[in-house]
Amino acid sequence: MDNPNLIVTCVVGDGEAETGPTATAWHAIKYIDPAESGAVLPILHVNGFKISERTIFGCMDNKELASLFTGYGYQVRIVENLEDIDADLHNSMMWAVGEIHKIQKAARSGKPIMKPRWPMLVLRTPKGWSGPKELHGQFIEGSFHSHQVPLPNAKKDQEERQALQKWLSSYGPHELFTEKGDIIDEVKAVIPSNDAKKLGQRAESYKGYVPPNLPDWRTFCVDKGAQESAMKAIGSFIDRVFTQNPHSVRIFSPDELESNKLDTALAHTGRNFQWDQFSNAKGGRVIEVLSEHLCQGFLQGYTLTGRVGMFPSYESFLGIVHTMMVQYAKFNKMAQETTWHKPVSSINYIETSTWARQEHNGFSHQNPSFIGAVLKLKPRAARVYLPPDANTFLTTVHHCLKSTNYINLMVGSKQPTPVYLTPEEAESHCRAGASIWRFCSTDDGLDPDVVLVGIGVEVMFEVISAAALLRKRCPQLRVRVVNVTDLMILENQGLHPHALSLEAFDSLFGADRPIHFNYHGYASELKGLLFGRPRLDRVSVAGYMEEGSTTTPFDMMLSNQVSRYHVAQAAVIGASRRNEMVQVQQQELFTELNHNIVETRKYILANRSDPDDTYDTPSFD
Amino acid sequence: MDNPNLIVTCVVGDGEAETGPTATAWHAIKYIDPAESGAVLPILHVNGFKISERTIFGCMDNKELASLFTGYGYQVRIVENLEDIDADLHNSMMWAVGEIHKIQKAARSGKPIMKPRWPMLVLRTPKGWSGPKELHGQFIEGSFHSHQVPLPNAKKDQEERQALQKWLSSYGPHELFTEKGDIIDEVKAVIPSNDAKKLGQRAESYKGYVPPNLPDWRTFCVDKGAQESAMKAIGSFIDRVFTQNPHSVRIFSPDELESNKLDTALAHTGRNFQWDQFSNAKGGRVIEVLSEHLCQGFLQGYTLTGRVGMFPSYESFLGIVHTMMVQYAKFNKMAQETTWHKPVSSINYIETSTWARQEHNGFSHQNPSFIGAVLKLKPRAARVYLPPDANTFLTTVHHCLKSTNYINLMVGSKQPTPVYLTPEEAESHCRAGASIWRFCSTDDGLDPDVVLVGIGVEVMFEVISAAALLRKRCPQLRVRVVNVTDLMILENQGLHPHALSLEAFDSLFGADRPIHFNYHGYASELKGLLFGRPRLDRVSVAGYMEEGSTTTPFDMMLSNQVSRYHVAQAAVIGASRRNEMVQVQQQELFTELNHNIVETRKYILANRSDPDDTYDTPSFD
Repeated sequence: MDNPNLIVTCVVGDGEAETGPTATAWHAIKYIDPAESGAVLPILHVNGFKISERTIFGCMDNKELASLFTGYGYQVRIVENLEDIDADLHNSMMWAVGEIHKIQKAARSGKPIMKPRWPMLVLRTPKGWSGPKELHGQFIEGSFHSHQVPLPNAKKDQEERQALQKWLSSYGPHELFTEKGDIIDEVKAVIPSNDAKKLGQRAESYKGYVPPNLPDWRTFCVDKGAQESAMKAIGSFIDRVFTQNPHSVRIFSPDELESNKLDTALAHTGRNFQWDQFSNAKGGRVIEVLSEHLCQGFLQGYTLTGRVGMFPSYESFLGIVHTMMVQYAKFNKMAQETTWHKPVSSINYIETSTWARQEHNGFSHQNPSFIGAVLKLKPRAARVYLPPDANTFLTTVHHCLKSTNYINLMVGSKQPTPVYLTPEEAESHCRAGASIWRFCSTDDGLDPDVVLVGIGVEVMFEVISAAALLRKRCPQLRVRVVNVTDLMILENQGLHPHALSLEAFDSLFGADRPIHFNYHGYASELKGLLFGRPRLDRVSVAGYMEEGSTTTPFDMMLSNQVSRYHVAQAAVIGASRRNEMVQVQQQELFTELNHNIVETRKYILANRSDPDDTYDTPSFD
Repeated sequence: MDNPNLIVTCVVGDGEAETGPTATAWHAIKYIDPAESGAVLPILHVNGFKISERTIFGCMDNKELASLFTGYGYQVRIVENLEDIDADLHNSMMWAVGEIHKIQKAARSGKPIMKPRWPMLVLRTPKGWSGPKELHGQFIEGSFHSHQVPLPNAKKDQEERQALQKWLSSYGPHELFTEKGDIIDEVKAVIPSNDAKKLGQRAESYKGYVPPNLPDWRTFCVDKGAQESAMKAIGSFIDRVFTQNPHSVRIFSPDELESNKLDTALAHTGRNFQWDQFSNAKGGRVIEVLSEHLCQGFLQGYTLTGRVGMFPSYESFLGIVHTMMVQYAKFNKMAQETTWHKPVSSINYIETSTWARQEHNGFSHQNPSFIGAVLKLKPRAARVYLPPDANTFLTTVHHCLKSTNYINLMVGSKQPTPVYLTPEEAESHCRAGASIWRFCSTDDGLDPDVVLVGIGVEVMFEVISAAALLRKRCPQLRVRVVNVTDLMILENQGLHPHALSLEAFDSLFGADRPIHFNYHGYASELKGLLFGRPRLDRVSVAGYMEEGSTTTPFDMMLSNQVSRYHVAQAAVIGASRRNEMVQVQQQELFTELNHNIVETRKYILANRSDPDDTYDTPSFD
C-alpha cells in the first residue's frame, strides 16, 4: 500500500491455505486501489500434503480451483508442467506482471477498471519434489513423509545416508562450485551489482520508518469540566494526522469507525473499498473489513515497511488476533536483536465499546482479555494505557503514534465522560503514568486512611463517585484518590522500563495504608503485576468478573462489584483498620451501601435505565 | 455429525461472512460423510451492509457468488425474487432438501458420490427490508441506517413515532391477533401438536448428553520407573474409547495427531476427509483440518448436541481460538443458568508440543497463553491440568471425558519422560491436585528449609533434578518437593471449587518456609492465582519468559531460567534464611551453579545438543 511501483510475490502453502485468516485474505485485493498502491502476486503452492494428511486444496481439481479463485475475483493460471516447471513459472510470472501493469496503467490514466481481475498463480508440484523418492519401501516424494526431515537417521543408517548422498548429488554441486569450494562465476553473475536490487537488501524490507508529521494535540483538547467522548476528540486529531501525512498513515478497522464514534477521522478521506461502485478508484486512508485477521495483517505489513497504522476495535474482538499479535511481537523482538533492522513504528490498538458500556450488545461483547495478552509480551514492547478522559487520551495517541517498536494498547470510552484535566495537567499526568488526584481526595490526599485507585475511565468514575459519597456520609474517613493511566508502572521495579521504584510506589500509594484497586480488566492480571511489592496484605483488587448481559451501564458496574458502592465499602473496611471514627460506624455504613446496591438494582430492573443522576459529574463542595 | 436424519439450516450474514473463520468454514462439507451424518443447508443472507459500510458479498454480483461457492464445492441457488420471496425461498429449500436426500441416498446405498455437490442458498434482500423507507430525508431501508435501531427517538420525535406506527401496522396486527390480544387460530394451527416437532423443543438442541462408555484407564498404565510419552499412553486409551463409543466421540485436530504422537488413536478408525479419493466414504472418528477455528466450531456443535469431543493441538496454536472458547464458555454459563438446559460434556483440550520441547520449530511455536485464557473464565467452568507423567495424564483424560460443563485444558509432553507414580498413586495424586513427593524430598519432606514446586512435566523434571543435585552438593539443605497437577488448587480459598483451604495450603507448602514455584506458563498467571495467600514475600516464581529459538530442550530451560541450576539457586537463597549451614556456603554454591549454567550453554553451542546425561532419571541414592 502506498508503494505504487512495487510488486510483491507471496507464496501460500496449501496447508496454511486451510486456515480461516488465509481463506478470507484472498479478498484483500478488493481493498487495493491500483492508482495509489502496488500489487501482490499470490502463488498458491499446492503440494498436496500437510504434516500427515492430504490438503483440501491438494484434493481440489483445476476446475474447482479456477472456479474458487475466479469467484474471489482473480484471473487464475495453473502452473504444473513438471517437465519444464522453470519455463512454465517464468512465463506465468511474465504474464502476471503484464496483467498487473494493465490494471495499474488504466487506474493511473484516469480510466480505472471496475473490479479488475488481478492475476494469481496455482503452482502444483509433488511434496518433497526432487528429494528422495522412497525409503525403506515407503514413498517419500509425493507424500507427507517428506515433511520436515525426510531422512532423520542419515547419521546412523547406511541406506538413509546413501539416499541423502544421491539426493544432494542430484543438484550437481560439481557444476555449481569450484574446486576450492567457491560458487562459480556464472552463478555469481546473477547477483545484481546494484545493492538496492538485491532481494535481501530491498529498501522496502528494512529501511526504517520516517516519523509522522503530527499536529499539536493540545489544539484538539476540550475544556476541563466539560463532558466529551474521547473517541470524538481523537477522531478530529486523526483527521489532521491524515491530511498532514497523506501517504504514510492508515486505519484498519473491522467496520466499527462509525459505531466507535471515530467517524470524524473520515472528514477528509474515505473508506478504501474498490468493489463498491460508490467508493471505487477514490483511494482512502481507512480500510474497514469485518475480519480482524485481515486488519492485523494489513497493519503488520504497513508498519514493517516503514509506515504508521492504527487498529481501532471493539474491546472484545481484539482477542481474535491475539496470536497474530504475539507472533508479530516475537518477530520484532528478533529483528531488533539484529544489527541491521531499523526501528519501525509501534503498532497501535485503540480499544473502545468496552464491557463497561455494552448496553446494546451484551455479554458476548464483554471481553477485556487483550490487555492480558499485551502484558505477557517482553517488557521492552508491552505498553498498555487506560487514559481517564478525552485530553489524556489525546496526549496518549500522540505519544503512541510517534513511538517505535512497541505494541501500544489504548483503552477508553466512546461515550461522553467528564474531562478532569487541562492539557498541561493531562500531559504531566500521562508522563508520570499515575498521580494523586487532589480534587477528590481528603486534604489533597495527605495522611489518608485508605487509598482508592482507579484504572480505566468508567471504573475511575466510580472511584471518584465513591470519594464524593464518602465525603458526605463519613467526612471523618480520609481518602487519597489515585488514577493510573499507564498500567506498566505497577510492575515490580526492574521488570519493566516504566515500573515505579519502591520509593515512588510508596509516595503514590502510601507505605502502609490499605489500597483498593478498581480495575477495568481481570483482577488476576493486576494481581500478577503487583505480586512482589511489599505488604500486599493491605491490597484488594476488583475488576471484570465475567458477569454481564444486555443491561444498563451502571448495572454492569454493580454486577462486577466495581460500582461506587462497592468501592465505598472497600474504603470503609480499609479505613476502619486505622481510623476509630470510621470503625465505630463501619457496620452501619457498610449495610447502608448494601442497601444502595439492592435498591439501585431494583430501580434498574423496574425502569430499564439507570437513575437519572448516575452520570452527573460528582461534586466535592 | 452422527445424526444421519437431521438437516440443519444455518443463516450466515454477509458481514459475518467476511471473517476468516467463516471464509474457511465453507469447506466443512468436505469432512461430512453422508452415510453416517446429516446435513447443513447454509443460507448466505446478503443484505449488502455491515454497521456502516457495504459488504464484500453485497458488492459481488451473482456470477461472482456462483463461481466462488461452486469452487467451494456447492450447488448454488440465488433467492432474490422480491415480488414473492416466500415462494422463492420455499421452492429453493424444497430443491435443496431433495438434493441432500439424493446425496445421502447414494452414500447409504453403497454408491457414494465422489465430491457430492451439496446445495447452498444465497438470499438477497435489502437491509432493513419492510422497515421504514426513509427518515428525515435519509434512506433507511436498503442502507446501513437500518442496522440495530432504525428509529432511535420514536419516544420524543413525532415523525419517528409516526414512521414506527406505519411500520408496525404494515404487519397487519388486526389480522394476526383477536380483539382480546390473543393470536388467531389460523396462526396457532401452524404450531405442531407433537412437542418434539416444535422448533424450540427439538431434542437435538437441549437433550443432555449420555456419558461415554469409558474403559478402565489403569489397563493403559506404564510401569513406574519407565520412560513413556504421555501422548502415546493416552493415544491407546482414546483408541479404546472410540471402539466403545462408535457414534458419540470424536477428535478434531489441526493435522497434528501424528506429530503429537497420538496416532495410536487411529488404530481402529480413520481420518474423515471426503474430498480425498483414498478416505472418501469411509467415515472416521478423526477430523484433521488446518483451521483451529473449524476444529473449535465442530467441537462446540458436537458437544452442544450431547456428544463428546477432544481437541489436541500444539500448545502455541490454541490461542487462535481463544475468543471462540470464551464465547462458548459465556454461552454455557447462560445456558446453565436456565432451568431447561441439561448438562453437556465438557470441552476437552489437549496441549502438547509445548514451548519446553520445540527444538525443530522454534520461537514462533512457543506460546503457553491459552492457560491464562482458561484461568479467566468463571471458576465454575475453568479447569487446567498439567499432569507430570503418562499415568497421571491417563487418569486426567479419563476424568475430563466423563466431566460435564467444564472447559478442560490438559497440558503435557509428547516425548518420553519418567513415570513417577503407579496407577494408584497417580489417582490419589490427581484427586488431591498436588502432593509432596517424598522420594525426592529430604527426610520425606519433613521440616524443610525450602519448598520447591513443579507445575508442568518438563519444569517438574528440573525441580527433581535440582533436588538430586542439592542432595549431592549440599546434603545439609533440607528440601520438600511438591508437584501441582491441578492448577486451580492454588486459587484463593472460596474463589474456585478446587482451591486449597488455608490449612491445606500450609500443610503442602509449609506455613512459613520459602517457596519456589517452577511453572510451565507465564509467571504472572501464577502470581495472580497466589495473590491473597498469606506471607507472599517468601514466594518466588519462575516461568516462560518469551525467550526461545530453534534450540535444544535444555537450552530452553536455561533461557527461561527454569533449569535445575536456576531452581537450585533459588533453593540455596531460600534455605539460607533459616539454615546457617547452607548460608555459610551460599556464595560458593550460587557461583558454582552459575558456572554450571555458563558451561552448559557453551557445551550446547559447541555440540548443538544437550549433554548426554541431561534427561537421565535423577537418582537419590
